[in-house]
Amino acid sequence: MSEHSLLENINTPYDLKKLNKNELELLAKEIRCFLIENVSKTGGHLASNLGVVELTIALHYVFNSPIDKIIWDVGHQSYVHKILTGRKNKFDKLRKFNGISGFPKRCESIHDVFETGHSSTSISAALGIAKARDLNNEKYSVISVIGDGALTGGMAFEALNDAGRSKTNLIVILNHNEMSISENVGSISMYLSKIRTDPYYFRFKKDIENIMNIIPPIGKSIYKSVEKLKYSIKQLVVPGMLFEEIGFKYLGPIDGHDINALIEVLNRAKNIEGPILIHTITKKGKGYIHAEQNPDKFHSASPFNIQTGEFKKNGRDTYSDVFGKTLTKIALNDHSIVAITAAMPDGTGLNHFAEKIPDRFFDVGIAEQHAATFAAGMAINGYKPYFAVYSTFLQRAYDQVIHDICIQKLPVVLAIDRAGLVGEDGETHQGLFDISFLRIIPNIVIMSPKNADELVEMIKFSRTLTGPCAIRYPRGKVDSYDINRKCNIQLGKAEILSEGNTVAIFAFGNMVNIALEVRDKIYKEGVYPYVVNLRFAKPLDSELILDIANKAKYIITIEDNVINGGIGSAILELLNKFGIYKPVVRLGFPDKFIEHGDVNTLLKKYNLDSDSIKEKIIRLYREM
Amino acid sequence: MSEHSLLENINTPYDLKKLNKNELELLAKEIRCFLIENVSKTGGHLASNLGVVELTIALHYVFNSPIDKIIWDVGHQSYVHKILTGRKNKFDKLRKFNGISGFPKRCESIHDVFETGHSSTSISAALGIAKARDLNNEKYSVISVIGDGALTGGMAFEALNDAGRSKTNLIVILNHNEMSISENVGSISMYLSKIRTDPYYFRFKKDIENIMNIIPPIGKSIYKSVEKLKYSIKQLVVPGMLFEEIGFKYLGPIDGHDINALIEVLNRAKNIEGPILIHTITKKGKGYIHAEQNPDKFHSASPFNIQTGEFKKNGRDTYSDVFGKTLTKIALNDHSIVAITAAMPDGTGLNHFAEKIPDRFFDVGIAEQHAATFAAGMAINGYKPYFAVYSTFLQRAYDQVIHDICIQKLPVVLAIDRAGLVGEDGETHQGLFDISFLRIIPNIVIMSPKNADELVEMIKFSRTLTGPCAIRYPRGKVDSYDINRKCNIQLGKAEILSEGNTVAIFAFGNMVNIALEVRDKIYKEGVYPYVVNLRFAKPLDSELILDIANKAKYIITIEDNVINGGIGSAILELLNKFGIYKPVVRLGFPDKFIEHGDVNTLLKKYNLDSDSIKEKIIRLYREM
Repeated sequence: MSEHSLLENINTPYDLKKLNKNELELLAKEIRCFLIENVSKTGGHLASNLGVVELTIALHYVFNSPIDKIIWDVGHQSYVHKILTGRKNKFDKLRKFNGISGFPKRCESIHDVFETGHSSTSISAALGIAKARDLNNEKYSVISVIGDGALTGGMAFEALNDAGRSKTNLIVILNHNEMSISENVGSISMYLSKIRTDPYYFRFKKDIENIMNIIPPIGKSIYKSVEKLKYSIKQLVVPGMLFEEIGFKYLGPIDGHDINALIEVLNRAKNIEGPILIHTITKKGKGYIHAEQNPDKFHSASPFNIQTGEFKKNGRDTYSDVFGKTLTKIALNDHSIVAITAAMPDGTGLNHFAEKIPDRFFDVGIAEQHAATFAAGMAINGYKPYFAVYSTFLQRAYDQVIHDICIQKLPVVLAIDRAGLVGEDGETHQGLFDISFLRIIPNIVIMSPKNADELVEMIKFSRTLTGPCAIRYPRGKVDSYDINRKCNIQLGKAEILSEGNTVAIFAFGNMVNIALEVRDKIYKEGVYPYVVNLRFAKPLDSELILDIANKAKYIITIEDNVINGGIGSAILELLNKFGIYKPVVRLGFPDKFIEHGDVNTLLKKYNLDSDSIKEKIIRLYREM
Repeated sequence: MSEHSLLENINTPYDLKKLNKNELELLAKEIRCFLIENVSKTGGHLASNLGVVELTIALHYVFNSPIDKIIWDVGHQSYVHKILTGRKNKFDKLRKFNGISGFPKRCESIHDVFETGHSSTSISAALGIAKARDLNNEKYSVISVIGDGALTGGMAFEALNDAGRSKTNLIVILNHNEMSISENVGSISMYLSKIRTDPYYFRFKKDIENIMNIIPPIGKSIYKSVEKLKYSIKQLVVPGMLFEEIGFKYLGPIDGHDINALIEVLNRAKNIEGPILIHTITKKGKGYIHAEQNPDKFHSASPFNIQTGEFKKNGRDTYSDVFGKTLTKIALNDHSIVAITAAMPDGTGLNHFAEKIPDRFFDVGIAEQHAATFAAGMAINGYKPYFAVYSTFLQRAYDQVIHDICIQKLPVVLAIDRAGLVGEDGETHQGLFDISFLRIIPNIVIMSPKNADELVEMIKFSRTLTGPCAIRYPRGKVDSYDINRKCNIQLGKAEILSEGNTVAIFAFGNMVNIALEVRDKIYKEGVYPYVVNLRFAKPLDSELILDIANKAKYIITIEDNVINGGIGSAILELLNKFGIYKPVVRLGFPDKFIEHGDVNTLLKKYNLDSDSIKEKIIRLYREM
């Protein structure tokens, strides 16, 4: 512990203020070691946190949290903030069940003023907090810390647009690392990079002199000079003019690893009236060579070896890989297929597609709304777009799925990754609503595979659909699978896995395997269930479901979705419509947000592991 | 008809190309008369269409639709386009059941390439269409026509950001009228107005000369000059620099009522490579004095008297007025209440609030995502925000409602206007999904009043809630009501309107009145139903519902929402959970998008009028 001797004594941000500037730099080193040590064991968002060590120290040095309010956009870069605000001893349980969250959580600390998880919300939240402060005639600083990636999300712009004309005191720190999770895209990113790299932006004074020199002292050929000046102005324009044009005072660019420079600019910002944008430049993964070299791999890292930077993972493919590889394979022969991601080429497995078919791969930035409608536009013009997106981020494009894709019945495929439990990322990232919010939309087909082989089939099947469709699949590794499998899927047809009597189990997607485990366990108790792999949440296989429901005495549905409005409810609606009035035990997640923790622990807690379900069925069976 | 002698002969855009420029101007006049005549009878979006007469003529004159693709953002300004593309004879049935839509519809014409209705989608769609064109190695123009209001929607920015770096040939026409529906807000709007009004922007050359004159010929006090120049550059910068910075070639500003200027700029744009932004300046309501003076009143107009500009409406309050007036009344005494709208102060009734309590009224622009999270920010800081929003536009903020409001259990009230059928605006505007997509979210309370008095009570009740809540109410006029009513609402408590036997009718919100009509009709047939005003979709009044369901033989639920996942399903889930297995006839809208038409016709078509429901109940009763 001696190597963390300064950090040892930091229990609140107040303790930080006692240090001198050399000590602050030493503290930054200690925090980096602390982060690397801890995250190498627990896993977590490493690279983004290594990037904001000095920025976080400077923020807590200059401002007085929690009186001054700091809002962390996305929030996965809040580890240093957590370390400095009394939670450093809880990092052994980071992102574990009952441990501290990987995101800001109000229940953890008064220093976590607004919870985040999804991108691009912080400026809106900060503006709301600032406006409330103004109504109260109070004086304190409100600070949003947002990355250049998150800035591409439309709501960040909505907030800038509103804040820029507001005259409200508000500090937006644009932390620019040219990476969100993968390499950043979009013209704003290009613009920021220009500020960062174009030496003209740093040589304003010198260039003005040069221009002066080329202008003749009196009148002749004014026109040409004006044109030249006009061009130079474009090149030369004060850094951050774009932000100044929309009402922000721009300060920057600042080296985000220079604590002294940061303290100076933050102190300056504190005393300026109106909305301010501070442009800091940092390096993702700073100070840990493996993370600096592979910031995307160390974005959300599993446990790793500190010396080698190697992950303690097995090499099996994930569902994302299965999706990416299968889509790539069929797209090599089907030139109508295009792939779209909102800044998640690696996370969604579309890196495979991007590598092989770059001209039909589109990374539109953190911009799910645009992604969905862009897909609709491509579909209108004859293409078959696959928009790969995490379940929870699809919520961002809900209106576009309804308004642009489904009303027009366009053949867009929503490849919904991270559906169901995601585990360690918790409340904001669990994909537990999509069945319910999608199945109410007309014209959409919704399916989910029981395993990787079936995902291969469903991707192939989705090609044949002429309208919108969603394929949902979970986070995690798969067993072996055959990418060359022939497609045996038929629209709206379920699969009977076991014939039985008395009990009928209808399971969807990832829960089919649990249903099979349950079956094997209740066989031993003399209960013989029907087990059905539903495959489709919409359209349901009405004929098969009604037939089996008629034969069974009671019906169990299992889904990794909230039970309200989910597939169990869809089956209940169907049975009621056809006059089958029987007990339907709908198993899924209850009406609450599900905390972080490993998937198996959470399944057990919510009685969705095979033992809990077995017990429930046996109990019901005996009560009958 | 002689006054429309040119228009008479325009049946396709091709016919337009035979006219000379004088004739085009005459045609514009004829179209204005045509629009005013027709919309005065049918109602519809008048002001925005009067504003784009010349622009639409110029577009169809220069480009070759449908080879070139024109996408109308929002789409309510597509009437002139419809007139020029063979639909002028259908304007007597504009927005009527079985008549033409007020928005672009692909089924109406090959010239309607992409359907719109909600704001800010057109650049995304156009970019998708353009990228598909490029993959096909085809050459044609793709044009998005977007207002400055719609530009404040975040997804428009997401699309600009993606398009700007794409180098794709794409023309964005930014039609700037300083009005979206109400007066426009935000810093981008201020920026555009500056371009429009600041004479410096038009006197570039002259100003450069002036600056030259103040700079001393040789070196002395260079610093000061540089500072001055720096300042001047800010003032002087070429118009549209903001758009140029993000990768667009900017052309403008152009007088959008000058056909010749428009034709010239469009021809120029046609031949420039890469993304182009054309900034046109128009006047909403142009050419009709009443609409010019009151563009917001003539945004979505009911039938009016052409001479006087007076609407043929009765003067009763709408649900929006009831909401706005009640909230204003309680906010005058409760200083924690703040009101938020996304560019709809009039539409939501918050104009009443804005007038009386301007410092606690926030119009954030067309930016539903930001509005929701901004509300969350204000709530974190102790305020009670009411975000008034149309049901269908709330879809835009779905993720923010989940992620920012409900996870944090913040006391934000969603005042959901235009819930249920909206009628003439059709598919994109019907508020038929909100019960289903909201009730699956943990921590939210959802209620709906049976009439204006109950809305008053619910607004008062919502004040007392410490977590998120939604109040949904329909479009339309109300009967008399008492704004001073005491609140008799209790959380999760329904209201029994009639005791009965055999049949139990559970109705929600606006459908309670229909349930009462049904009751009166079936009384005459000797059927005596329970009638329950549910009041809450979440939490349900389980005790009351179970009690009555136990007594009744069959159960009817009525809601103005899709039946999938709606309140009927919630009741079905409840009964199943408590072991009540009985027929539940869930009445609501089927699993399709509901077309435009007047509300009564649509209710009848979908068997939700009291006669249809009566017949259904009588039939069931006799079958028992």
